[in-house]
Amino acid sequence: MKKNILSFVLLILSSNFALFSCTTADAPPNYNKTKTETPDPELVLRSIHDNALIGSPAYAQLRYLCKDIGPRLSGSDNAQKAVEYMQRVLDSMNLDSVYLQPVMVPHWERGEKEFCQVIGNENEKINQKVLDITALGGSVGTNGKLKTQIVAVNSLSDLENLSKKEAKKYKGKIIFVTQPMDARFINTGSAYGGCSSIRVFGVNTAAKVGAKAFLMRSLTLKNDNHPHTGIMIYEKGGKKIPAAALSTNSANYLEKILNKAQKENTSIEMELQLNCEILPDVLSYNVIGELRGREKPEEIITVGGHLDSWDLGEGAHDDGTGCLQSVEVLRLIQKIETKPKRTIRCVLFMSEENGASGAKEYARVAKEKNENHIAALESDSGGFTPRGFRVQDSARLAIIQKWQPLFKPYNLHKVEFGFGGVDINPLGASGTLLIGLEPDSQRYFDHHHAATDVFENVHEREFLLGAAAMASLTYMMAEYGIE
Amino acid sequence: MKKNILSFVLLILSSNFALFSCTTADAPPNYNKTKTETPDPELVLRSIHDNALIGSPAYAQLRYLCKDIGPRLSGSDNAQKAVEYMQRVLDSMNLDSVYLQPVMVPHWERGEKEFCQVIGNENEKINQKVLDITALGGSVGTNGKLKTQIVAVNSLSDLENLSKKEAKKYKGKIIFVTQPMDARFINTGSAYGGCSSIRVFGVNTAAKVGAKAFLMRSLTLKNDNHPHTGIMIYEKGGKKIPAAALSTNSANYLEKILNKAQKENTSIEMELQLNCEILPDVLSYNVIGELRGREKPEEIITVGGHLDSWDLGEGAHDDGTGCLQSVEVLRLIQKIETKPKRTIRCVLFMSEENGASGAKEYARVAKEKNENHIAALESDSGGFTPRGFRVQDSARLAIIQKWQPLFKPYNLHKVEFGFGGVDINPLGASGTLLIGLEPDSQRYFDHHHAATDVFENVHEREFLLGAAAMASLTYMMAEYGIE
Repeated sequence: MKKNILSFVLLILSSNFALFSCTTADAPPNYNKTKTETPDPELVLRSIHDNALIGSPAYAQLRYLCKDIGPRLSGSDNAQKAVEYMQRVLDSMNLDSVYLQPVMVPHWERGEKEFCQVIGNENEKINQKVLDITALGGSVGTNGKLKTQIVAVNSLSDLENLSKKEAKKYKGKIIFVTQPMDARFINTGSAYGGCSSIRVFGVNTAAKVGAKAFLMRSLTLKNDNHPHTGIMIYEKGGKKIPAAALSTNSANYLEKILNKAQKENTSIEMELQLNCEILPDVLSYNVIGELRGREKPEEIITVGGHLDSWDLGEGAHDDGTGCLQSVEVLRLIQKIETKPKRTIRCVLFMSEENGASGAKEYARVAKEKNENHIAALESDSGGFTPRGFRVQDSARLAIIQKWQPLFKPYNLHKVEFGFGGVDINPLGASGTLLIGLEPDSQRYFDHHHAATDVFENVHEREFLLGAAAMASLTYMMAEYGIE
Repeated sequence: MKKNILSFVLLILSSNFALFSCTTADAPPNYNKTKTETPDPELVLRSIHDNALIGSPAYAQLRYLCKDIGPRLSGSDNAQKAVEYMQRVLDSMNLDSVYLQPVMVPHWERGEKEFCQVIGNENEKINQKVLDITALGGSVGTNGKLKTQIVAVNSLSDLENLSKKEAKKYKGKIIFVTQPMDARFINTGSAYGGCSSIRVFGVNTAAKVGAKAFLMRSLTLKNDNHPHTGIMIYEKGGKKIPAAALSTNSANYLEKILNKAQKENTSIEMELQLNCEILPDVLSYNVIGELRGREKPEEIITVGGHLDSWDLGEGAHDDGTGCLQSVEVLRLIQKIETKPKRTIRCVLFMSEENGASGAKEYARVAKEKNENHIAALESDSGGFTPRGFRVQDSARLAIIQKWQPLFKPYNLHKVEFGFGGVDINPLGASGTLLIGLEPDSQRYFDHHHAATDVFENVHEREFLLGAAAMASLTYMMAEYGIE
């Protein structure tokens, strides 16, 4: 095969036809299964990738989770269906153990679709435009229609830094924080990181100046009509006012007419209705499947994603892909003849989006049982082409980096310090090495928490390469440890 | 900003909410334009990326090329419209020179849409299924409806290695080479490279055994209903038989029923009609725009893509993105206060798909004028997130690799030996260093030469990051040379 490719490259170099060439002769060798206890890791990683790219059931499983079950908001019937489906999938895999770990989770419901309309002002009646809006997760409703003036502020820090006198202007009104994500960041996660506190905590700042409601621009770099939801958190003892996000197109429009109104010294009113409500907590589950280690079963490596999702799309990239990739890690490791030296546990966490109670419960039980979690690997940045791993410990980063030559043929070039993930994070307190899969970030926030986070936007090979990357690192840690 | 991100990271580490974090604090510094002759390259590259990611006209220009002009088959009216549009774009940019370079190009027309139907056999009439098919570029037509038996062969080499006796079985029939691209390659270009000779030369092997027509499976890793076209070349003096590609779904179906028929010792007939024809060559143009070097204007760096495309889609990834990225390189370089030390020339090549006559003419004229082309950079692998560069000279690879620390913040990790590109290739004979932009390859062959190669499948940021990567490398070569 290598020879064929070489002669083909020579062919193109000598002619000028519309052909496309390979960078490297990455021909798949025939990996022969071996009973040797420690087979050549280079061959094992090649085998993992071959088995991911040909004949994997994971993409069809993702389709079922997204299309047949759909969105899986914490506490919902669909979340329960997802628990049962994933348990069935794990049960069918001949693992050493499959079980559900009970956990109480928040239950917030959106209710009927939101309504938001600009209704102009006394002088001008032309701006009667319906805007695309979504309640933020955890928000209270408006209790019927809220009709009041809408005012803009450039950023959360501007709002925080208002003098008492200025703050009066915002009392009784709807506050709209116009701040967009900064497109100049190369990694879109950094642009999100610079703005997500607006969504999580902005509502409290608005409540403190006496606003009736809080609006923000959706956290995405794409201009379109899809609003993006996501968690917000009320401060203890603070006033709970409704909070929502506008699609970027609606936000651009609103910003424009508010600027115009300000110049003309007029005002604009808005009608806003959110029908969401906070219900009592519900019993739900983390779904867990385990391959016990052949030599050091007490040393555990957790791989996981979160099974719950927001309700607007199908929770495809966030985080159906992470769940099915984690299950696929087990399948790919099972394909290696020898059992892993250490225990590999796949955990599908419940309620990441609504406060990560599943993650906290998993870590609590692990500590209670005095389990030895040496490492945890999470996929919750989308099912895009993997580029490497984020290792949340600069002191132990080199342990993972020493395997980079093995990862390079799979274009996993980036092994750097970074955040592991929300669901594995509580394990960190006991010294577990936390690692996040780092996929290409360009398209993630197009879909994140929006109606477009659907199965069709997940590319099969990109998704499977992510699973193979996770399986490769998991195999290395399970076989060679992380000392 | 950096401080904000840091405190935000600390925030997530201490709480467990549904947030997403950054890998590296890649905060954009405020790049101050400077009149220093050699500004800090780190700041220049940051500035190039800032200007690409905010306020670039390139994506709107790509939209015009794709949606308002559309497919631009060599020799077609649309190709001429594209020449005129791109000349207007370059004319508006205040360059040192903009001109058209005349070149005669092939003119092949598809004619009316092809037809292909399986018509069962004497015993069985149930298989009357219409298949998705496209003529290969350069093929002759069937001259009305061709009706004959269809027979499968597993690979081109199987067909080549037939004994004389076996070959008789194929005489007078339509030969279908079933070979698929090998999904196990990580870089899809390698999988394509292993199969593209089937498309380019397979027809000749089929003609030699006396086949009436040649069919192949579309060169893509995706199973869908979109057939993929592409060039084929008749051997001099050989018989010209019609050649076409089936969509992968149609190919899978046909392979299945042919296997069944073989087991049952029956045969299957097919009706095939291709209406294409080869017309006389047409006068067309390479479109060229140039920024003259401030110190070494005689040293030229060519950046380019090809302006022609296949007719099934809009030539978005192949290669509208390469063209507009190359134009964007000039714009981004112009944004740097100092003019480039060496000359940068953007070349939009004509007729890459149909034999690369534009590329050959450009190299011929360069040689005739005794021009000194030190390097050439091509983008013809799609407008996806850039991952690095392919350098077509292992001896000079280190010259480019020494700049890798500057490229790393932009996730350009891969600078390896590889093919530069079809259009710059003829320059190689004079010692020009040939370099290809290497984007992520996973989605390229989903769209390559198919009806889905449309503007909507190009992601704005991915495309612009490619342009910024090209501008970064071009700037370094123009400023520091390649010695």
